[in-house]
Amino acid sequence: MAETDWKHAIRDLKGVLLDMCGVLYDSGEGDGVAIDGSIEAVKRLKASDLQLRFCTNETQATREKFVAKLGRLGFDICVDEVFSPAPAAVTILKERGLRPHLLVHNDVVPEFETVEKTDPNCVIIGDAADSFSYQNLNKAFQVLIGLETPVLFSLGRGRYYKEMDGLKLDVGAYMKALEYACDVEAEVVGKPSPVFFQSVLADMGIQPSQALMIGDDLVNDVGGAQSCGMRGLLVKTGKYRPSDESHPTVKADGCVDNLAEAVDILLKHRGQ
Amino acid sequence: MAETDWKHAIRDLKGVLLDMCGVLYDSGEGDGVAIDGSIEAVKRLKASDLQLRFCTNETQATREKFVAKLGRLGFDICVDEVFSPAPAAVTILKERGLRPHLLVHNDVVPEFETVEKTDPNCVIIGDAADSFSYQNLNKAFQVLIGLETPVLFSLGRGRYYKEMDGLKLDVGAYMKALEYACDVEAEVVGKPSPVFFQSVLADMGIQPSQALMIGDDLVNDVGGAQSCGMRGLLVKTGKYRPSDESHPTVKADGCVDNLAEAVDILLKHRGQ
Repeated sequence: MAETDWKHAIRDLKGVLLDMCGVLYDSGEGDGVAIDGSIEAVKRLKASDLQLRFCTNETQATREKFVAKLGRLGFDICVDEVFSPAPAAVTILKERGLRPHLLVHNDVVPEFETVEKTDPNCVIIGDAADSFSYQNLNKAFQVLIGLETPVLFSLGRGRYYKEMDGLKLDVGAYMKALEYACDVEAEVVGKPSPVFFQSVLADMGIQPSQALMIGDDLVNDVGGAQSCGMRGLLVKTGKYRPSDESHPTVKADGCVDNLAEAVDILLKHRGQ
Repeated sequence: MAETDWKHAIRDLKGVLLDMCGVLYDSGEGDGVAIDGSIEAVKRLKASDLQLRFCTNETQATREKFVAKLGRLGFDICVDEVFSPAPAAVTILKERGLRPHLLVHNDVVPEFETVEKTDPNCVIIGDAADSFSYQNLNKAFQVLIGLETPVLFSLGRGRYYKEMDGLKLDVGAYMKALEYACDVEAEVVGKPSPVFFQSVLADMGIQPSQALMIGDDLVNDVGGAQSCGMRGLLVKTGKYRPSDESHPTVKADGCVDNLAEAVDILLKHRGQ
């Protein structure tokens, strides 16, 4: 690991992007559990001169409900600081004058309440879980294939995730189904999409070279951020595995035990 | 079209393979409708010295029910003469000692009654239609990802098909979903898979050069047969479109108006 890379760059930083699950907390029964030192680390970052944003691929809840969960764990986070695929998609829809047909989890539908949805001219799929019935997927397919220029957005591209009762198919599998059926390529909204990271940078009003992404997912967090010109720091919590440090294509700019250590180094190098 | 190719080869033929939908009949309300001259053409082929087999990608019914439908249309066809993906899959399962987890249409399940299905070591998906619930697809996924060497069979690889009330997602879309989720490549059983055509040739005990495939699908019927060393004749019925005659990669060995004309030419060149 080229540890010196990111330490040399610390003085030029103006903002930090934090992944949430696996960096702030571990999911599990109920709300999950905060990772040691992460609540204090977030507090210290917020008190510093660095801007702070949170980046998650969560699409089974609105940001409001998600932030409320983190509040119960002890984190002081505002909805406006959280970037997840659904609101990012809403921004894109409005910019491009698109009206979506939604195939998403019922609990994330409120994120789209300000978007015109009649006479749809694109399709958005998220991690809809049980709502991925044949009827619902077929409806999304029919809308998509009926468009002169089919536009498909996928909120993330995960293959599967783990729940208490076993592995579950994630949105990426259904994205592939619609891509094949309609001979289109989905636009992925969420990590590791450059558009997603760029929307966070735009909100902070800073350049990629002035931003550091901290995450536990080497490909989606670190690699995705690096593709946009940011530096990417890997934490050894969450889904981190030692093999991440010898990945064939993605090399983190640094690797630390956890968020608390990252913030220690960050603020020390900035004299705070 | 190199019409002479197939006519020169007619004397060496020992068997004919016929696609069904679009060659024998057009689907529609109820049982559909026989294509002009096709009932008589099948009779003439059966009375000739050529062997005859029928090849379909139908997986929403057992061969018994499918043959009964064709009987109501006026065709004299036996179940043993019909090759569809499900029985071909059963042969492969038995040869390789595989026990499938099935995600197929309820009406085709009886085709698998002779196959051991406990403790599955592979997954078979067909055009399951409404049975493609999230729960069912997730179960197939869990079986597949839990295998040391995941083996996935797909009964065809169609993108979608047309029904009275609109376009419907076909098995190929769900094949792609499982392929992505499990990072595997499905083995396709049915046209245009070489294994499928080879099983028909093996049943007739003839070589590819001794067989002619007649179909309305340039890629799956004609191209698939040609890939196995057979000749492929295109009929201008069913899903035929004029653009098929200028396809960039697949060139039929001949093109005739319909099955009746094909059989006329075949038998005339054989002096029958």
